[in-house]
Amino acid sequence: IPTAGVVGLLPMVTYFFLVVAMYAFLGNFLFALLSRTSVSPKHKSTQALTTIIAAVAGISYFLIQSYYRDMLAELATLADADNRQTLMRESYNAIGQYRYMDWAVTTPLLLLKMVSFLRVKLHEIKRPLAIMLLADFFMILTGYIGEQQVGFDNEVLAGPKLIWGAVSTVGYIIIPFTLYKLWKQYADRALPKEQQAYRLMALTTVTFWGVYPIGYILTVFAIDTNWIHITFSIADLINKVGVGLVAYWAGRETVKYAP
Amino acid sequence: IPTAGVVGLLPMVTYFFLVVAMYAFLGNFLFALLSRTSVSPKHKSTQALTTIIAAVAGISYFLIQSYYRDMLAELATLADADNRQTLMRESYNAIGQYRYMDWAVTTPLLLLKMVSFLRVKLHEIKRPLAIMLLADFFMILTGYIGEQQVGFDNEVLAGPKLIWGAVSTVGYIIIPFTLYKLWKQYADRALPKEQQAYRLMALTTVTFWGVYPIGYILTVFAIDTNWIHITFSIADLINKVGVGLVAYWAGRETVKYAP
Ligand SMILES: CC1=C(/C=C/C(C)=C/C=C/C(C)=C/C=O)C(C)(C)CCC1
Ligand SMILES: CC1=C(/C=C/C(C)=C/C=C/C(C)=C/C=O)C(C)(C)CCC1
Repeated sequence: IPTAGVVGLLPMVTYFFLVVAMYAFLGNFLFALLSRTSVSPKHKSTQALTTIIAAVAGISYFLIQSYYRDMLAELATLADADNRQTLMRESYNAIGQYRYMDWAVTTPLLLLKMVSFLRVKLHEIKRPLAIMLLADFFMILTGYIGEQQVGFDNEVLAGPKLIWGAVSTVGYIIIPFTLYKLWKQYADRALPKEQQAYRLMALTTVTFWGVYPIGYILTVFAIDTNWIHITFSIADLINKVGVGLVAYWAGRETVKYAP
Repeated sequence: IPTAGVVGLLPMVTYFFLVVAMYAFLGNFLFALLSRTSVSPKHKSTQALTTIIAAVAGISYFLIQSYYRDMLAELATLADADNRQTLMRESYNAIGQYRYMDWAVTTPLLLLKMVSFLRVKLHEIKRPLAIMLLADFFMILTGYIGEQQVGFDNEVLAGPKLIWGAVSTVGYIIIPFTLYKLWKQYADRALPKEQQAYRLMALTTVTFWGVYPIGYILTVFAIDTNWIHITFSIADLINKVGVGLVAYWAGRETVKYAP
């Protein structure tokens, strides 16, 4: 593995964050697995969702950091700073795509986890839930297609990429609207702690989830893509590990009002 | 890893679905494992079947996506569109065969899972069950042999392939007939929720299972085989994860009428 002496500091710090995120998801996975029995019975399946999300994210980061390391090795063979920047930008499109495959599975599960704090039976909200999950998958798939709008040398095709991004945003908008509708309709069934957890988690879909479309747009400009890797890694930790901890605490606080 | 700029969009979307399916089976595996204790005692072994099916499918998709990625790398070295199409068609026969090895184990388990909702002792239905499982294995093995009817350059030999397909179909037809016979004979022993689950699951053998023979036939024509990969991945998710969730819900609903 190269070091900053050869490839520069920022790529090494990026690599650091990618490996740290992988370890954090491993920890998240084990914690969710081992703390299953500390939450109220109703929230055991919530813990199962956290376990699955952490496992998928962990494997995804394993792949991402390993391709990133291969890229670093190639980077070390390039002497010219311009060539290096080109390699990093172009490899970003290849490496970044692994995030979308992760999201295709983990974002629907994150939404299910949020909804599980409302104490509604899933068949009561079949329609809005199905629409939200489909909108979410649509958002990820069209975003992936947009990410693939690159030329033969992996240069981003700005026009098509932004159009696909706009298409994807249609799916995105449906998510917070549906969560808000469900909140207004069913909030009073939940315990105060559960309401608080739902509010906090649903809020991330309009705050920390917003980091991803911003990063998507920034790739169109001449930004150093390592910054996007670092930001996405931190956002992933908040959206997955952070939300997982909120769910755990709320699940533990409600133990005394079982089930 | 290549991107659409080099190999085109459809192969990349195919790769996306293969990796997403792999993650989904990992999630399915963990969920079935962690929710064992939430179903009625009688259906614990059903959850075990779901766990096994998901594990085999997950490993199978790991292999398929990794061979597919190697194929993409080779695709990136070909400049001519015709040559690319040829490589994809020819590699399909090599990569697609891994599905049959998965099916040889998972389809008998899927059938056992369905039957487990009828509340019959297995030795009561020894004969029809054995015939159905043998017919199923016969269907997969002869289908695999049919899939191997290719020339030295991996070109499909249409005639022999279709003949083996017809042979395989004989095994296929036995499956829904047996399931229907068992239903008529034993349905009244099952709880309403179990009847509903059985009906839903047995119906997939004549609906979503039908996708596979159609895909088999289509390989004989000049179709882009990536569409078959995508369709099979979605069908696999419905037939394995979807049916697994149906079994889970039915198993959970019957907890109050234990065992
Ligand atoms: C709107 C939009 C997007 C939204 C992505 C989101 C919202 C991703 C969320 C990911 C999460 C929550 C990961 C979990 O850790 C894309 C696909 C970038 C494409 C451009 C338009
Ligand atoms: C009839 C027929 C076939 C049937 C295949 C089936 C029915 C496969 C089912 C697979 C399942 C259910 C997988 C689980 O996810 C073959 C072998 C393609 C060969 C052509 C004739």
